[in-house]
Amino acid sequence: MRVIDLTHILEEEMPVFPGTEKPKLVTACTMEKDGFREKLLTMYSHTGTHMDAPSHMLDQGKNLDDFAVHHFVGNAIVVDCTDCIRDVSLDHLKKYDLSDVDFVLLKTGWDKKWGRKDYFNGFPALTTEAADYLASLHLKGLGVDCISVDLMDNHDFDVHKILLKEDMVMIENLTNLDRLDDVFTLHVLPLKIKQADGSPIRAIATK
Amino acid sequence: MRVIDLTHILEEEMPVFPGTEKPKLVTACTMEKDGFREKLLTMYSHTGTHMDAPSHMLDQGKNLDDFAVHHFVGNAIVVDCTDCIRDVSLDHLKKYDLSDVDFVLLKTGWDKKWGRKDYFNGFPALTTEAADYLASLHLKGLGVDCISVDLMDNHDFDVHKILLKEDMVMIENLTNLDRLDDVFTLHVLPLKIKQADGSPIRAIATK
Repeated sequence: MRVIDLTHILEEEMPVFPGTEKPKLVTACTMEKDGFREKLLTMYSHTGTHMDAPSHMLDQGKNLDDFAVHHFVGNAIVVDCTDCIRDVSLDHLKKYDLSDVDFVLLKTGWDKKWGRKDYFNGFPALTTEAADYLASLHLKGLGVDCISVDLMDNHDFDVHKILLKEDMVMIENLTNLDRLDDVFTLHVLPLKIKQADGSPIRAIATK
Repeated sequence: MRVIDLTHILEEEMPVFPGTEKPKLVTACTMEKDGFREKLLTMYSHTGTHMDAPSHMLDQGKNLDDFAVHHFVGNAIVVDCTDCIRDVSLDHLKKYDLSDVDFVLLKTGWDKKWGRKDYFNGFPALTTEAADYLASLHLKGLGVDCISVDLMDNHDFDVHKILLKEDMVMIENLTNLDRLDDVFTLHVLPLKIKQADGSPIRAIATK
């Protein structure tokens, strides 16, 4: 079995969504003092490669722990958006056969800008028309290799809301989507946090 | 595909290893104030259902992020230890065919005591002879449904050290092992924390 890691590393100097704080990974126990190593981890629930629950943005939305665990595993396909300027249109989505997939992953190529200022702007996002179409397909989730499924100047978070309303989960800050082709199995496993509006995840593809 | 969750829920009132602190899951952003929900998560790297890296207890041991991600996926088998008193012996292990597995999971039944005082004592653990045998098999990891792979009165952590030395990862505080039979695929995915001596994980079995 081939296993591909789709996750950015979690470290103190990593990029985070503008306005939030970076994680703290503090040495708590050492070999010298305690005979073992342990860290104290402090991070927001939407840090790094992470998943949004419907409750992140919807009053009555489900938490991640309201889903059965099979919601986090399924067939996935990559939609190449590297030539899309600002918009990922309905016409563009319709070039792909999405009839037998659980997850759609949009490859923008923005993961290559991780750690740089231009990571935070200029990536394309679904139009509301394209989001409405995806919402009609009974998918488990949408993933992107950039910081948001919405454009940064869309303060209404339309794409988030259209898809979260259908109990889809959003996966943001993926990487290595260029190493995937064809349909594969995606595992996007959040921590099992009580009443989770979101969680950092480990995301892998298996083939 | 059948997917079984092997993970305890992460919440503020959960059991933690004696001497460490419980996690804090604090509401940081609300729908009313911010228009979205977000939590600030604070926890030790060995909280809940979690994985130990060799660096947890060995001076020169590998961190979790030193392993390729395929180390966290593989064939697994459950060894029934519910009738073992204190010791899981070499003879007991040899009743099972471990020739084609990546992970061995010891089912003690202690997950049923989660949240009670008697969770912390009385579970059986491998003898050093049994651990030496497992260490010879080139496995990826050992998992248990109790709080430690060592007995609580073994302050030398012999089982940990024998297995971590062979680059096996330890998985502790699993649950639902009684729902598994035969050989299955185990996914034990830690967060991708830099220089991770350990990490809370989401553990699932697929069949």
